[in-house]
Amino acid sequence: MGQGTDLDAVLARLDAGRGAAIDRLLEFLRIPSISTDPAHSQDVRSAAEWLQKELTELGFDATIHDTTGHPMVVARSHTGTERPLLFYGHYDVQPVDPLDLWHRPPFDPAVETTDDGEVIRGRGAADDKGQLMTFVEAFRAWRDVHGQLPSDLILLFEGEEESGSPSLRPFLQDHADDLRASLAMICDTSMYSDGRPAITTQLRGLVGEEVVLRGADRDLHSGSFGGLAANPIMVLAQALGSLKDGQGRVTLPGFYDGVHDLDDALRDDWQALGFDAEAFLKRVGLRIPIGEDGRTPLEMVWNRPTCEINGIAGGYAGDGFKTVLPAEARAKVSFRLTGSQEPAAVRAAFRDHVRRFVPDDCEVEFHPHGASPASVMDVSDPAFNAAKAALSEEWGREAAFIGAGGSIPIAGDFKQILGMDSMLIGFGSDDDRIHSPNEKYDVSSFQKGARSWARILSALRPAQGTTSS
Amino acid sequence: MGQGTDLDAVLARLDAGRGAAIDRLLEFLRIPSISTDPAHSQDVRSAAEWLQKELTELGFDATIHDTTGHPMVVARSHTGTERPLLFYGHYDVQPVDPLDLWHRPPFDPAVETTDDGEVIRGRGAADDKGQLMTFVEAFRAWRDVHGQLPSDLILLFEGEEESGSPSLRPFLQDHADDLRASLAMICDTSMYSDGRPAITTQLRGLVGEEVVLRGADRDLHSGSFGGLAANPIMVLAQALGSLKDGQGRVTLPGFYDGVHDLDDALRDDWQALGFDAEAFLKRVGLRIPIGEDGRTPLEMVWNRPTCEINGIAGGYAGDGFKTVLPAEARAKVSFRLTGSQEPAAVRAAFRDHVRRFVPDDCEVEFHPHGASPASVMDVSDPAFNAAKAALSEEWGREAAFIGAGGSIPIAGDFKQILGMDSMLIGFGSDDDRIHSPNEKYDVSSFQKGARSWARILSALRPAQGTTSS
Repeated sequence: MGQGTDLDAVLARLDAGRGAAIDRLLEFLRIPSISTDPAHSQDVRSAAEWLQKELTELGFDATIHDTTGHPMVVARSHTGTERPLLFYGHYDVQPVDPLDLWHRPPFDPAVETTDDGEVIRGRGAADDKGQLMTFVEAFRAWRDVHGQLPSDLILLFEGEEESGSPSLRPFLQDHADDLRASLAMICDTSMYSDGRPAITTQLRGLVGEEVVLRGADRDLHSGSFGGLAANPIMVLAQALGSLKDGQGRVTLPGFYDGVHDLDDALRDDWQALGFDAEAFLKRVGLRIPIGEDGRTPLEMVWNRPTCEINGIAGGYAGDGFKTVLPAEARAKVSFRLTGSQEPAAVRAAFRDHVRRFVPDDCEVEFHPHGASPASVMDVSDPAFNAAKAALSEEWGREAAFIGAGGSIPIAGDFKQILGMDSMLIGFGSDDDRIHSPNEKYDVSSFQKGARSWARILSALRPAQGTTSS
Repeated sequence: MGQGTDLDAVLARLDAGRGAAIDRLLEFLRIPSISTDPAHSQDVRSAAEWLQKELTELGFDATIHDTTGHPMVVARSHTGTERPLLFYGHYDVQPVDPLDLWHRPPFDPAVETTDDGEVIRGRGAADDKGQLMTFVEAFRAWRDVHGQLPSDLILLFEGEEESGSPSLRPFLQDHADDLRASLAMICDTSMYSDGRPAITTQLRGLVGEEVVLRGADRDLHSGSFGGLAANPIMVLAQALGSLKDGQGRVTLPGFYDGVHDLDDALRDDWQALGFDAEAFLKRVGLRIPIGEDGRTPLEMVWNRPTCEINGIAGGYAGDGFKTVLPAEARAKVSFRLTGSQEPAAVRAAFRDHVRRFVPDDCEVEFHPHGASPASVMDVSDPAFNAAKAALSEEWGREAAFIGAGGSIPIAGDFKQILGMDSMLIGFGSDDDRIHSPNEKYDVSSFQKGARSWARILSALRPAQGTTSS
């Protein structure tokens, strides 16, 4: 049987099984697997068990691994000679508060017809159970057509993503030999904002830092001490205010080491997206991109590092006025990194910068809050263009390589611990209301998402359909 | 009878009446006249009535004036031809929390013997009932010796000083003709820190300002928006951090207009105080004066203006870390003024400065929190040197003209509304624990304070003792 014919059969199978696939997802969504709420810890386990049972029925060797938190579900098809592909998703969901803003109970999901088409409504529909099931339904159709699963699949589904994934890194370290693959497929992302299919090929890294500045051993009266005693808020304002210059550039020495300009192909891809920065900012009440002079808005968020002050506190900021000269001021500062910027070097440069402002009789304390380098995937790997072509075919429009301004820690962990790149492909939409009341996932995303994975599997495993028959 | 002899008799009378005077003060201190606590409003009135009765017995025409808050007590001796002297004090006291830190009930005052001598312990002993009674006891002894009060005294005792004196300015405005005097005597201050008697001849003014900076209409994810969208904390840090330059000078254009250098006499007086900035700062855990290059530490707090950030808040500053790009940041900023700096001009320059940093798509809001010019007394008025000589004589050491870094709003109000300077003379000590548990007033301060006023009265009214006989 030819490869094209196989794929057509798998896609046809997915279309024929659409109703049953939705029913399975609804069943999965009924399990209230809220990982942050200890009252739901048994539900989280039930969701893991539900997955284990599904995957076992499909022919996977599926295991539940206990951790100090919620369990990991690991499933694999029989091991062949190829280097495997790893598929990552999470089966835990966000809390549902405020409950009264939901128009249906969050764990009584249903297909609803809206002006924009059919949607699957319920907590976890988009984040991430619906997306995770696009994998599973593609595997199921593949097995139905070929009589067996693609060989060399590894599935890793965690139950702590909405709680910060505390067990994930230790688990990857402990099971590195079993989990190492040629590429990781991560389904926890969205399409480009206009609904164009996309593969996220670069993510910014993050350095988080808290700085605490202490002056006098108590709040002072600014009449008695103002102009004589150091003011920690002023010191902090001077240190933080000088982190960016008038051109929007971060002033730390060496900060831009390892930051690379876009290559022409990616620049063209991004240009073709027609990103409307003004419209993007208008949705949140703003208008003007404030990044570095001479950079496009998409570069600012995807390919340029930045420094942001995320929080600041000191002295009296309540109602009225107190003329205190405060004992202490603190701020949380984060850097988004691109290219090969080294988190440790950025952290050190930041601390050196702040220390230059601190008078000798004051104290400064730094607390690190996470560090991850940027993830830049090697898109010269033919798999990326193969997947891009598959997505374009399924959606009838050119898929794009895009960036992301945020960090997806799992991609960095896969790179760092398992040495593999990630292909981030998801079918979420901007209006899915993830983490909010009335979360939904478009039925079309679910269906075409599964079909997309079938196409990608076919593109990356062209020979598998026939070698086993 | 000669003037010296009269004064000696008054001083002798004060010494003989010491025990009775302390008993009267203890009785006054037993009235829990906490002005901030509505539950004590009848007690505040009782304290006013206690004063009215005492003053009437002394021969004053004493009246209680109701206000929208607590009453004013105004008393006057019969009006002569001279321009009167006004004496100001307050009969309300601070709250007593935390009560369990008091070693005796705050309103069960007593004389206690300590290692440093006898003290009167109780709420209000130093702030301000004990100080106020130094006036009254001086007047009493004067009357006992001369048969009548000095003519042309006006007493103004308020019951809202610890609540911000909301009724004071309207009262001064409504009764300006009755209260206008040649000079106001204010007893609500301390001696210089080493126990040297002092007259405060200049006070810094104050401009308070709250600035609120708004960017997006919600907190943003710094991954999605960082580097593209304006960050109100960064804008604020840049605006506030640039308010002072590397030499400790405030950078606002025109800020130093009206700031005067010390004249030689005052410079010598201050030099003679031997102010030990390092010791002063060491008590609060600091070491290094941070004011303008080339200025002495005393100049920094008494004769130089400053800018202080009193409070700042924005974004997430709690435990852990949130990578938000906040919708809003706010700060409270105050300026201490000297010389003839104009509060309105300083406020306007500050606002202009901040606005220069605000991107066009962000909003800035300013809220004024008070404005008062510096008070600089005219020490060429012979009364100042006469009072200084009287204090030096009583305390056996050279009295000093000093400054104060804080504002005493009543002095500004007297100047602005009644056109008169104030002579600020008090006998409090740094260790009186005003506003704190276990407040005390040294018996020696009480006794020598009353004697000081007798000497000052005698110096300023040399002829009065005999004109009436």
